[in-house]
Amino acid sequence: MKNIYFTEVQVKSILLLQEKGVAIILLEGPGEKWNLPILAKPSEVFSISLALEGQEPPRPQAHDLIVSIIQRLNAKVLHVLIDILDEPLCHGIIALDIGGRELDFDSRPSDAISLALRVHAPIFVSPDVVAKGAVHLNHEEGSLDLGERTKLRN
Amino acid sequence: MKNIYFTEVQVKSILLLQEKGVAIILLEGPGEKWNLPILAKPSEVFSISLALEGQEPPRPQAHDLIVSIIQRLNAKVLHVLIDILDEPLCHGIIALDIGGRELDFDSRPSDAISLALRVHAPIFVSPDVVAKGAVHLNHEEGSLDLGERTKLRN
Repeated sequence: MKNIYFTEVQVKSILLLQEKGVAIILLEGPGEKWNLPILAKPSEVFSISLALEGQEPPRPQAHDLIVSIIQRLNAKVLHVLIDILDEPLCHGIIALDIGGRELDFDSRPSDAISLALRVHAPIFVSPDVVAKGAVHLNHEEGSLDLGERTKLRN
Repeated sequence: MKNIYFTEVQVKSILLLQEKGVAIILLEGPGEKWNLPILAKPSEVFSISLALEGQEPPRPQAHDLIVSIIQRLNAKVLHVLIDILDEPLCHGIIALDIGGRELDFDSRPSDAISLALRVHAPIFVSPDVVAKGAVHLNHEEGSLDLGERTKLRN
């Protein structure tokens, strides 16, 4: 499902906007030219935070369980893709290699990102996602302003 | 990993104790002789609630993703087991059949239960769990009292 128009992004950080009770998954484009914020629920991003911090949770989270199953079944995460499902709602696609064959699985973006981070697989976004969601940030701007400029949703 | 001393339980309900900010996974023993409450975070039981209500979520949750992967990889959930990890903390074990071979995966009890409900696999508890966590409830008692009598944790 991957094609040359997809752009690889990095997970820059997770922002918790306490007063609004929401979280933002902050992705970053190549050369730090733009950021791509995706609105989510705090419970949906907790597992991403653990992976970002490189923390080994005391017991496996759901995404650690997925990694175990994939590995024990001799499959491999090739990459994940974030695309727009029904604006502003995004979805994630997880591409697995199973015996040399690529199989794609639908998921929420947060699940796809959480999984990719754990196995160091690349995260791609579609041109549509960049067009609709990318923002250029000034260092003077706070996270509250980013909240208002976030157009896409997990 | 299953043996004759394990007891099959049903998921009776999920209780949200709003004022305490916690949830209880309420399991039920054979013949409704006892209940087995397990304390959890509301975010950990959301996915169980969806499965109990038979709701098809608008997009796959992490556990629906696990089910998809297991099925597409020609594996099958045989059963899940709840045991005590380090009292009062419990853990879950998910037994998969992969090409006729049984493989066990560690998880949180909530993940194991959520997965079992989705594929209609039996849920077992160890004798230790019954000894430490089972309670007999009177119908006059409220859920708050149950909160106090819950000894085990997700």
